[in-house]
Amino acid sequence: MMLNIAIVGFGNVGRAAYEAVLAAQDMTVRCVVESPQLTAPEHMKDIWLTDIAQIHTYGKVDCALLCLPTRICPQVAQTLLAMGVNTVDGYDIHDSIWDVRCELDEIAKQHGARAILAAGWDPGSDSVVRALMQAIVPRGITYTNFGPGMSMGHSVAAKAIPGVANALSITLPTGAGVHRRMVYVELETGATLEQVTRELKADAYFANDDTHVTQVDDIAALQDVGHGVQMTRKGSSGATHNQLLEFSMRINNPALTGQVMAACARATAKQAPGAYTMIEVPVADLLSGTLEQHVRSLV
Amino acid sequence: MMLNIAIVGFGNVGRAAYEAVLAAQDMTVRCVVESPQLTAPEHMKDIWLTDIAQIHTYGKVDCALLCLPTRICPQVAQTLLAMGVNTVDGYDIHDSIWDVRCELDEIAKQHGARAILAAGWDPGSDSVVRALMQAIVPRGITYTNFGPGMSMGHSVAAKAIPGVANALSITLPTGAGVHRRMVYVELETGATLEQVTRELKADAYFANDDTHVTQVDDIAALQDVGHGVQMTRKGSSGATHNQLLEFSMRINNPALTGQVMAACARATAKQAPGAYTMIEVPVADLLSGTLEQHVRSLV
Repeated sequence: MMLNIAIVGFGNVGRAAYEAVLAAQDMTVRCVVESPQLTAPEHMKDIWLTDIAQIHTYGKVDCALLCLPTRICPQVAQTLLAMGVNTVDGYDIHDSIWDVRCELDEIAKQHGARAILAAGWDPGSDSVVRALMQAIVPRGITYTNFGPGMSMGHSVAAKAIPGVANALSITLPTGAGVHRRMVYVELETGATLEQVTRELKADAYFANDDTHVTQVDDIAALQDVGHGVQMTRKGSSGATHNQLLEFSMRINNPALTGQVMAACARATAKQAPGAYTMIEVPVADLLSGTLEQHVRSLV
Repeated sequence: MMLNIAIVGFGNVGRAAYEAVLAAQDMTVRCVVESPQLTAPEHMKDIWLTDIAQIHTYGKVDCALLCLPTRICPQVAQTLLAMGVNTVDGYDIHDSIWDVRCELDEIAKQHGARAILAAGWDPGSDSVVRALMQAIVPRGITYTNFGPGMSMGHSVAAKAIPGVANALSITLPTGAGVHRRMVYVELETGATLEQVTRELKADAYFANDDTHVTQVDDIAALQDVGHGVQMTRKGSSGATHNQLLEFSMRINNPALTGQVMAACARATAKQAPGAYTMIEVPVADLLSGTLEQHVRSLV
């Protein structure tokens, strides 16, 4: 059975999600939804839309991948779930994931739809590894060390600071789950580095981290979407101490995010109506192919 | 709600599973079932049984952890599932896991019970990581490198070879998922190293690996249940190549196995009747506490 996918938002992650769906044998892209300001690429004119209300124009959509700024994801998800369309989003504000999940859960159940939220790599696939590590080593400490790499969420947040023309935020791990944010900014005419730095450091995305703001002439010269993570857990299983676990990745960030979202689209089709984070979904449901194939090749 | 657990088999893994259940706040050990040949430790006489038919003697059991030689797990699981008791086992013969799963699934559904099989660390928690790696990097190669460490399954298989009084099998990784088996044997009087080596190398546990058999005077002098694994996957997400993932552990083997089984006991209570491998179970179901706690702290 082919899964009919809508890509909502066609930035870095949207393009990667589009490529991930194209590469999958069990999914097809029905449409791409973008704002009217953006012009459709020539070869995509026959799947391009500018309004989610018309999402079924080019064929019924089973699942929409919301490749949008994190803060508008919940509202768009609610609209689509109310239309009976499953949604996957990369909502990444850790503190409010539970609340958003509960809001989406209610609407999804009312309309017989499914949402998988916080479906990127962190939150997302890293969350699955963190939960597994805690299950098999229940007492101990997990450290999640990000980077070095550009944080898309933090870069978007930096760009939203008044006086910032363009920005790029690099995450550097300093060990034990502590990070430094290296933020590079192009300033608008009349803006001062002092004021931008003050406002940026007060933003919720940066307030808890060692943040350094540097003015540059050309953000484009710094571009690299490579990223990484290293997660460690040391602790006890039963009465036995000194159990050591580690998970690490070196990855293209939007490519991985888009791929995780495509895999979660597959999983929406297999869940009961409601909203889910990735730790609530069996990993087998993320895979194409049959369960027998997965058990024989992966278990 | 407390989960009432039976420990079936009280060897290395059974003792570790017992300790894992004792350390959990949401589980209690109702009984330990062992063969009549083994004497109960003094402090366990009031929970000791010698027959699974009497498993509810000291209070109703919700879930039995089958800490038994792998080849007898399916039969014992079937017996208990037919009694309506959930089971968790560490069945580890990769090639037949799917078939055993289907057999147990049928019986479990008939009797309204749940089985989680192949619930150790490999197969088990490693399987979850392998499936996740494949979902987020769908094209590429995963290598699972075990060791260095003692393989319990291979040591039991070596001990079963005629002429072997005692044996210990060490797994050494030689890279790219290829392993060497270093097997240390104490011989029975009259047995020859040549014949034991020939029979051992023909056994299904050893036939595919570079196996070296060494005669020693005292296996006890070599004992160490530390083990490890390193899994790597390099491949593509969407249209993007060179995605690098790695998972590794340095662990006490029976302690981790027992802990995984205890976590899966928790998960049996949350699944619909049937049989499951760990990739079919949401990782959140392995954890104690509420879903809200898990989402807030781990997602």
